[in-house]
Amino acid sequence: MASRQREIAVSEFFLKNRHLLGFDSPHKALLTAVKEAVDNALDATEEAGFLPDILVSVTTVRPDVLLVAVEDNGPGIVEEQIAKIFGKLLYGSRFHKLSQSRGQQGIGISAAGMYAQLTTGRPMCILSRTSPKQKAWRFVLGIDTSRNRPDLHRKEQVDWDRPHGTRVEMEIEAQYQRGTHSVEMYLKQTAIANPHVTFTLVDPTGTKTVFPRTARKRPASPVEIKPHPHGIELGRLIAMLHGTEAKHLKKFLTSEFSRVGPKTAKEIIDTAGGRLTARSYPRRIAHAQAKRLHRAIQKTHVCAPSTSCIVPIGEELLVEGLRKEICADVYFTTTRPAAVYRGNPFQIEVGIAYGKPGGVGLRVVDGGRIERVACEVTSEDLVAKEGEPARILRFANRVPLLYQQSACAITKVVSQMSWRAYGIEQPRASLPIAPMVIVVHMASVWVPFTSESKDAIASYPEITKEIRLALQECARKLRAHLHGGRALKREYERREAIGRYLPHVGEALQALLELDDDARDRTVGMLDDTLHRSRSVR
Amino acid sequence: MASRQREIAVSEFFLKNRHLLGFDSPHKALLTAVKEAVDNALDATEEAGFLPDILVSVTTVRPDVLLVAVEDNGPGIVEEQIAKIFGKLLYGSRFHKLSQSRGQQGIGISAAGMYAQLTTGRPMCILSRTSPKQKAWRFVLGIDTSRNRPDLHRKEQVDWDRPHGTRVEMEIEAQYQRGTHSVEMYLKQTAIANPHVTFTLVDPTGTKTVFPRTARKRPASPVEIKPHPHGIELGRLIAMLHGTEAKHLKKFLTSEFSRVGPKTAKEIIDTAGGRLTARSYPRRIAHAQAKRLHRAIQKTHVCAPSTSCIVPIGEELLVEGLRKEICADVYFTTTRPAAVYRGNPFQIEVGIAYGKPGGVGLRVVDGGRIERVACEVTSEDLVAKEGEPARILRFANRVPLLYQQSACAITKVVSQMSWRAYGIEQPRASLPIAPMVIVVHMASVWVPFTSESKDAIASYPEITKEIRLALQECARKLRAHLHGGRALKREYERREAIGRYLPHVGEALQALLELDDDARDRTVGMLDDTLHRSRSVR
Repeated sequence: MASRQREIAVSEFFLKNRHLLGFDSPHKALLTAVKEAVDNALDATEEAGFLPDILVSVTTVRPDVLLVAVEDNGPGIVEEQIAKIFGKLLYGSRFHKLSQSRGQQGIGISAAGMYAQLTTGRPMCILSRTSPKQKAWRFVLGIDTSRNRPDLHRKEQVDWDRPHGTRVEMEIEAQYQRGTHSVEMYLKQTAIANPHVTFTLVDPTGTKTVFPRTARKRPASPVEIKPHPHGIELGRLIAMLHGTEAKHLKKFLTSEFSRVGPKTAKEIIDTAGGRLTARSYPRRIAHAQAKRLHRAIQKTHVCAPSTSCIVPIGEELLVEGLRKEICADVYFTTTRPAAVYRGNPFQIEVGIAYGKPGGVGLRVVDGGRIERVACEVTSEDLVAKEGEPARILRFANRVPLLYQQSACAITKVVSQMSWRAYGIEQPRASLPIAPMVIVVHMASVWVPFTSESKDAIASYPEITKEIRLALQECARKLRAHLHGGRALKREYERREAIGRYLPHVGEALQALLELDDDARDRTVGMLDDTLHRSRSVR
Repeated sequence: MASRQREIAVSEFFLKNRHLLGFDSPHKALLTAVKEAVDNALDATEEAGFLPDILVSVTTVRPDVLLVAVEDNGPGIVEEQIAKIFGKLLYGSRFHKLSQSRGQQGIGISAAGMYAQLTTGRPMCILSRTSPKQKAWRFVLGIDTSRNRPDLHRKEQVDWDRPHGTRVEMEIEAQYQRGTHSVEMYLKQTAIANPHVTFTLVDPTGTKTVFPRTARKRPASPVEIKPHPHGIELGRLIAMLHGTEAKHLKKFLTSEFSRVGPKTAKEIIDTAGGRLTARSYPRRIAHAQAKRLHRAIQKTHVCAPSTSCIVPIGEELLVEGLRKEICADVYFTTTRPAAVYRGNPFQIEVGIAYGKPGGVGLRVVDGGRIERVACEVTSEDLVAKEGEPARILRFANRVPLLYQQSACAITKVVSQMSWRAYGIEQPRASLPIAPMVIVVHMASVWVPFTSESKDAIASYPEITKEIRLALQECARKLRAHLHGGRALKREYERREAIGRYLPHVGEALQALLELDDDARDRTVGMLDDTLHRSRSVR
């Protein structure tokens, strides 16, 4: 049996478990591949300080096989890194960094290439140019899955009309579809959370759709931070003590953690006791002492982590994004202050787009009259119809999450919240029933996804709490608005009743005052007008 | 930016994403650690041909820290392999093999050790003995997470009273709890699917619980098979062509696939055309030719894969397992024939345990009388109370799945099935409401889990179809039984009505026949008896 034991390459593992990465069906495979490439394109372009222009093109090669190309105006990739970035799983620059980015695992794009290779046998093709002074590099690249390393088919220098940027092409077994899980809807949602980006989509029929930017300012660059002491597990602390270059304990505490100054460090060391001093040599600290130190850290007050490492969309820009892509009556947004889970700072934002333009159902028109508005909703629309559950749009680090809605912390909190308190219908423990879109965004240095396909956020208690608070805050704003709406509805019903009796009143008046039919109708009309004007609403 | 690019060790990746492996909360961490160790113990013991005796012991070290020990009577592990099996992620014997086993990824037990190290800073301790002729080996072992390799603290030869077997101990941050997600419930469920195993549990209070085996025969050993040609993707076929040792195409087809004999191979090659012959040298086959070959394989009829590689529990043993651990009125089981998804053979089994002993609600007693039975359900009971949703027990390769019920293909199929057709109440698209336990078992050479924590099965269409058919088959048996029950209920209601009128009949008789009170009561009693006897049920 011993002879059968052997190492498993991480690429073999994910090839066999490709549903973990989002490549479980031809529909989802297309969206996953596009998403991974767009994530990388946005991260790179923003990091380099450019306003991103992203082109996504999908063409049919043969039935069930699509050629996906994603092109950006980013800084390009230096020649030595291209093969590894696209041809090796678990390779990247963002895993070891505590700062907000879309990609975090170094798996996505190489997994897409692996899927292409598996289903069509075709390698990826990468074009990248770092400066107008140099030619572009063209790599044709597969993955040696049994060893998790790039399998280079060809590389050459070519001309490219872009001054800098990257283009990746792959041929995958996939299906192009419309609706909720379409590439178009994915780009639309991405545009909501990224109003500073212009997306261009060319679909298999050759139709070009542009989602233009509305914000000319790109979001602030997130700053990299050190870990916060309160989120550190004992084992990690021990590993840090052994790996540090600091020569004494005080230096270790102040240099390896964020928010620990000399004063806090002294307090921690004093609380720990057990022969630990500021001068203790970190690598020599024994297990029992490390345990004391760990307890002391938890007991000591340390300022909340700096939030410069995370960049929320912001209430204003979120409203702008919503307005741009969702046609609704009113928009409310809330950005919570930053919070921490397991030492990772994060921030929750919520946006609600409610109703159809001009109001749902009823509106006040000239002269105080109330009208019922026919509310037409097309299938392309994001706002649900009346009587349907609200639509939820989930985002993590500005990336829309499209699958596994029911497994996501966001959906759970939305369903568990009591919407009735805010004047919105809700069946027990289900999504609220209202013509609205609820947008929830989690920005963090490390989003805890429930799987590598990054479709759903795991339910850490600190995270669900913040989501709940943000939703409540935003729902309160909505309640104030709806209050007016409900008053309007009651008034409408009262007037309907008046309207039903007015003709009878007219007939009675006609009999009493001996009016002719014209005079009767005029009198009823005047009565109606007066009643409407006198009972003013809002 | 390029300088920041670096490789990410798979152990670092899973340490940061430990919720993917099931270590997201102290409750779940305990269960995951026990489960991984028990899976390994069962696999090893069965493979060596022993009837497994498994000891699980959990002791409190200090608040929130537990010492978990799992011991088996298996064949032991040879000295050279111990460190790698327990101290390296993605290392094992079962990943590259097409045959049914509990473990498949080579991640579980080392991940548990990594979690122990992270939370308590303590290494694992492994004791293993391969033969009574040799001493046991004792390893104290951590994991170097930044390199994914074992970090050996100590190894020594020691005395051990077992002739052969393995014991693994780890100190983890965890909480012991009772109820649905308890170690006890996990072992109870494992005992249902494994009636040939004896489990002994010693909990933190020192209480010993034994789940004794009822079957003396261990399940047949699954046979290893080669991949079935119909599940092979183009990319995999190309990789196999390049990697084969077969000197010509015909040999390649017959030796690398299951169910392909010389005749089928010839048919495939003829269908492929394009200059491909039986003598073509596999490594020289070009991309276009491979594509033709791939299409030809799909078009050619190939026998269904051999099912000797999967070992279902079997209808009889499943009933026995259910009877042993679930106290119910009736038991039904169904084992479907084997089917295939993505080239992997699998088999679905369903068991239903319905009602409480003696029937739920009503039963016929001596003399044809019907009685309402008080149905007492303790919280430890698996059968749900009347009016509550049915309990689902999910199994994959005889391992109970305890978390993420709603994300699992099994739950989805149970909810989507129309239970009303079988006489069982069911709210729309929800679990059926009935005092029953539904057991679903998937046996396969490769179970597609939705995450590495192996909590839920992914919804491949071939799999959901088989689950549906098995559930329907089993539900039909239940319907026949319930039909009798419903007749009983109607009869009970009729008699209730008679019972209500009898006293009035008595009073009328008394007046007509001038009976005294005693004679009236006697007459009514006789009438009652006669009516019950004459209207016989069943």
